[in-house]
Amino acid sequence: MKNFCVILFHDFETLDVFGPVEVMGKLNQHYRIEFYSEHGGLVTSSQNVKVQTLPITELNGLNELDVLLIPGGIGTRSEVNNQAFIQILKQISNRAQFVLTVCTGAALLARTGLLKNRKATTNKMAFDWVANLDQEVQWIRKARWVADGKYYTSSGVSAGIDMTLGFIGDIIGMEAAERISTGIEYIWNKDRNDDPFC
Amino acid sequence: MKNFCVILFHDFETLDVFGPVEVMGKLNQHYRIEFYSEHGGLVTSSQNVKVQTLPITELNGLNELDVLLIPGGIGTRSEVNNQAFIQILKQISNRAQFVLTVCTGAALLARTGLLKNRKATTNKMAFDWVANLDQEVQWIRKARWVADGKYYTSSGVSAGIDMTLGFIGDIIGMEAAERISTGIEYIWNKDRNDDPFC
Repeated sequence: MKNFCVILFHDFETLDVFGPVEVMGKLNQHYRIEFYSEHGGLVTSSQNVKVQTLPITELNGLNELDVLLIPGGIGTRSEVNNQAFIQILKQISNRAQFVLTVCTGAALLARTGLLKNRKATTNKMAFDWVANLDQEVQWIRKARWVADGKYYTSSGVSAGIDMTLGFIGDIIGMEAAERISTGIEYIWNKDRNDDPFC
Repeated sequence: MKNFCVILFHDFETLDVFGPVEVMGKLNQHYRIEFYSEHGGLVTSSQNVKVQTLPITELNGLNELDVLLIPGGIGTRSEVNNQAFIQILKQISNRAQFVLTVCTGAALLARTGLLKNRKATTNKMAFDWVANLDQEVQWIRKARWVADGKYYTSSGVSAGIDMTLGFIGDIIGMEAAERISTGIEYIWNKDRNDDPFC
């Protein structure tokens, strides 16, 4: 059983998290989904969803760290300046087999320095803010999502669903991704370069 | 401030809830989102999301009950036989200005009897099970979502996002719905009769 570890913080964006979680949840024979935050306990999204989490330090106890999901949201505006949190994020991102970000989750990952010289994207409305956090990242404005090695970054909110299906397509196969999108009656935009919001 | 009350139960389907919550959350100047369950406390989705809820009896204390959201999920298979829960659901659905269901959430609403002689839909894979719970409902197989008076019912999982945008289009206006779908970079299937999964 692999782990799919979702990192939450106060004022995360609801669908950034639960679109990918819905999709990955269909692989529950392969992945166990758990939620973490800096201090554990209840963490509240911008849409007033209170989610129970484990302390992020518990990730240090895992031998294998398979997939990390870092969502965006208005909370990233303060978390980019939370050096303790960014430091832990860097450690666990280094250990993870794959790191996925949605929307301004890319801002947090950029702050770790791990995106330097890699291709990445983020959402439209906050693009310039995120891109200025690290100008050594090859920021791509027109993309539904971007994969560069183990790092998957997506555009805003709903693009995280398309990216996660694309991720499953890459690591398991297109048939599995298609079956999941049909099962949840989701009209999958499967072309990562087809970005109608650019 | 109006209330948008989300009814949770064990093994609800994650995206049935948080797609509509994401969309309604953009109307946070008009709607306050709260989560309720039969007994309150933490309720866990089929994808291991643990959400903090209030006891559903607290809804009896509200003077006005504006919008109810009833999600689906594998948990509906047992909840349709939970007579105490169905009874409360009937009371609060009667009082609500609008009732929205996603996926097999329609099974719970059908059990209250309130859908009799009304048009409604549900998801594809569980269609026959739901339709047999009350054959006096005018079940519509091919529909992304159906509105009949104050009752809005949608097809599976992701269709709830389309329905909620359609609901906003109906009660507030298409401009607001378009602005929200663009803001969350969601490719909205805005034709309720265009159901590619039928």
